[in-house]
Amino acid sequence: MEKEAAALTEETQYMIDKHVRKETENVESSGDAKEMRAVILAGFGGLNKLRVTKKAMPEPRDGEVKIRVKACGLNFLDLMVRQGTIDNPPKPPLVPGFECSGIVESVGENTTGFEIGDRVMAFVNYNAWAEVVCTPVDFVYKMPEEMTFAEAAAFSLNFVAAYMMLFEVANLREGMSVLVHSAGGGVGQAVAQLCSTVPNVTVFGIASCFKHAAIKDSVTHLFDRNVDYIQEVKKISPEGVDIVLDCLCGDNTGKGLTLLRPLGTYILYGASNLVTGETKSFFSFAKSWWQVEKVNPIKLYEENKVIAGFSLLNLLFKHGKCSLVKSVMDKLFCLYDQKKIKPVVDSLWALEEVKEAMQKIHDRGNIGKLILDVEKSPTPLMASDSTETSEAGEEEEEPEGDNDSKERMPFIH
Amino acid sequence: MEKEAAALTEETQYMIDKHVRKETENVESSGDAKEMRAVILAGFGGLNKLRVTKKAMPEPRDGEVKIRVKACGLNFLDLMVRQGTIDNPPKPPLVPGFECSGIVESVGENTTGFEIGDRVMAFVNYNAWAEVVCTPVDFVYKMPEEMTFAEAAAFSLNFVAAYMMLFEVANLREGMSVLVHSAGGGVGQAVAQLCSTVPNVTVFGIASCFKHAAIKDSVTHLFDRNVDYIQEVKKISPEGVDIVLDCLCGDNTGKGLTLLRPLGTYILYGASNLVTGETKSFFSFAKSWWQVEKVNPIKLYEENKVIAGFSLLNLLFKHGKCSLVKSVMDKLFCLYDQKKIKPVVDSLWALEEVKEAMQKIHDRGNIGKLILDVEKSPTPLMASDSTETSEAGEEEEEPEGDNDSKERMPFIH
Repeated sequence: MEKEAAALTEETQYMIDKHVRKETENVESSGDAKEMRAVILAGFGGLNKLRVTKKAMPEPRDGEVKIRVKACGLNFLDLMVRQGTIDNPPKPPLVPGFECSGIVESVGENTTGFEIGDRVMAFVNYNAWAEVVCTPVDFVYKMPEEMTFAEAAAFSLNFVAAYMMLFEVANLREGMSVLVHSAGGGVGQAVAQLCSTVPNVTVFGIASCFKHAAIKDSVTHLFDRNVDYIQEVKKISPEGVDIVLDCLCGDNTGKGLTLLRPLGTYILYGASNLVTGETKSFFSFAKSWWQVEKVNPIKLYEENKVIAGFSLLNLLFKHGKCSLVKSVMDKLFCLYDQKKIKPVVDSLWALEEVKEAMQKIHDRGNIGKLILDVEKSPTPLMASDSTETSEAGEEEEEPEGDNDSKERMPFIH
Repeated sequence: MEKEAAALTEETQYMIDKHVRKETENVESSGDAKEMRAVILAGFGGLNKLRVTKKAMPEPRDGEVKIRVKACGLNFLDLMVRQGTIDNPPKPPLVPGFECSGIVESVGENTTGFEIGDRVMAFVNYNAWAEVVCTPVDFVYKMPEEMTFAEAAAFSLNFVAAYMMLFEVANLREGMSVLVHSAGGGVGQAVAQLCSTVPNVTVFGIASCFKHAAIKDSVTHLFDRNVDYIQEVKKISPEGVDIVLDCLCGDNTGKGLTLLRPLGTYILYGASNLVTGETKSFFSFAKSWWQVEKVNPIKLYEENKVIAGFSLLNLLFKHGKCSLVKSVMDKLFCLYDQKKIKPVVDSLWALEEVKEAMQKIHDRGNIGKLILDVEKSPTPLMASDSTETSEAGEEEEEPEGDNDSKERMPFIH
């Protein structure tokens, strides 16, 4: 494990060196560049499938906006993409990333509402982790004046998802209680903040112990994810809770349903348990999928319970709910302007540091959002900095002492 | 079948004769009666398990109200009780019935808020189909001045269920669409009326053809329950609908989910398919229960769908949500006073006519609610009146030409 961590560090150092050299070389052509840097996922698998490379500069089509990206959001979902454990992933190679912020560089034909120079944040159906992104105008929003690019990249997916789950799906009202897994993560922190905009809402958060000091003020009660939180919650609230937000899936579904009060709503909005441990190949994913506890509608009837699934990406890119999302974004901007909500940024990473960032999110080491800062130069790592990363993000199939330099070379041009 | 229908008629005639004789006999003792008439279910099974009998006069306990019953509601759920196909039914013999209206005759110790003579409607955890009922004050509501006793008995279960499903569980808003099965039934008509209180709501109703003329103005689109309504709805609304209300269960669950728009809510609020045809014994019920299509939470996640179960009786009597129901009732009384809603009464029946009433609801012959009118004398039936009733309500196990006079005698004192 230490050896692997050392290899990861060495590799990143290599990326940094190449990156710095490249920047110097390209400095004169940056004004009218035909190429841009992007993170590429070469194939589904471990961290070694990721590299930074040059890609042809995209140009906006009809109804699209071209954005010079400043910051990108990194989500647990990106890990699922990397491992190919999402529903119908596109074929690699691909550029991951679903959200970014930046400045409008140009607009396509028939594109209204945006001008060159506008500070914007956007959803992208892949391709966000790049210097330049084109996306339909329906997915682009002007940033509030006071918002930074890093905040904007941390805002869209997490706050829209949290808001829609709490207020569109579950109808959160005064006096209710909410249980949220991964309370220290991006969605978890957004949920906690949004709950505080409604009077007298009790938030039960579940998070790793080492985050407790940092996030304890954001929730009402905090539990270690390794303890039997069901019993702990029931001690405080024997009737259970009104809303359970679960991004883990698996066993947690049954537990979550147990904790629901009558008329309560359980919302599954992610399936991060499908990523860890043994479920890294498509087949083990499929197996997990089927092993998820299914729900009998008659049981819901007898118990007066509601179970919901929520996928913001599908809502945007498959189900065509852009205008609903736009209206939610407007409400969120109001709350932001009133200083009632503020995205929590865990840390900023250069594109070349995407592996370390992914490892951190895999290890659930983040409090708030991880951001890829496109203009950031990678920080040279100390070997000791990464000795704590686990090996779970890497493919076990990978033969040790692999000498395929193409696989190992992260920065290809 | 004709033979059975004739037997049913003959039997009822017998009930009527006995009833009339009894009333004459008891006329002097009605002021301080130690007994009252009630419908008794002697055991789970067919219509022949029902009879009208004398029972000891109930007296109110602490926190209870004693009601001289004027009218009782008859619901599909009562058929499930009769057949024993509900979850944890009490042991027969029992008095069925979950709702009634009447006049407060006395109150128990520590009972506040009601006085003798108050016109009230109430939920009862069984025992409603009787001349006198005692029930905790939490389940009793003062009737609006203009409401008749028949309307009040038709109001509680149907309108509270419809309201809570549309506004508490599903969050019905302007411009949404609702699909409702059994659109001609009590809940169906309540749903249609409540939908009309929200601007621009489209209601797709499913009902037997013969009801279409009577209920066509209450819904936007009406379909025959025997046609492929999925295709018909999709022709009009290719995206599907926002809310599906299903009281049938079985195959309809899968179909209902198919028809849901993203963020749409499917609500199962009954399981009347478990009553018909072969599913009449406990074992076939249990089999049906397990055969109901189960739902994978990950599928809900991918499709952004919500599935809910709603049982008002469990909410009231198991889950302790009386105060929530009270607040809903207050809102409904406002709508009633504004003449925005009005319960639809199909027909009034004497206690002794409970079998014919049940047969009618079984055959889905009703438009709106069937009411047991406690003060009504049974109408002598013409033999031809009941030749259209099906045999499905009777137990197939029952040997033909059964001469057990106890089983056949409906009015025992």
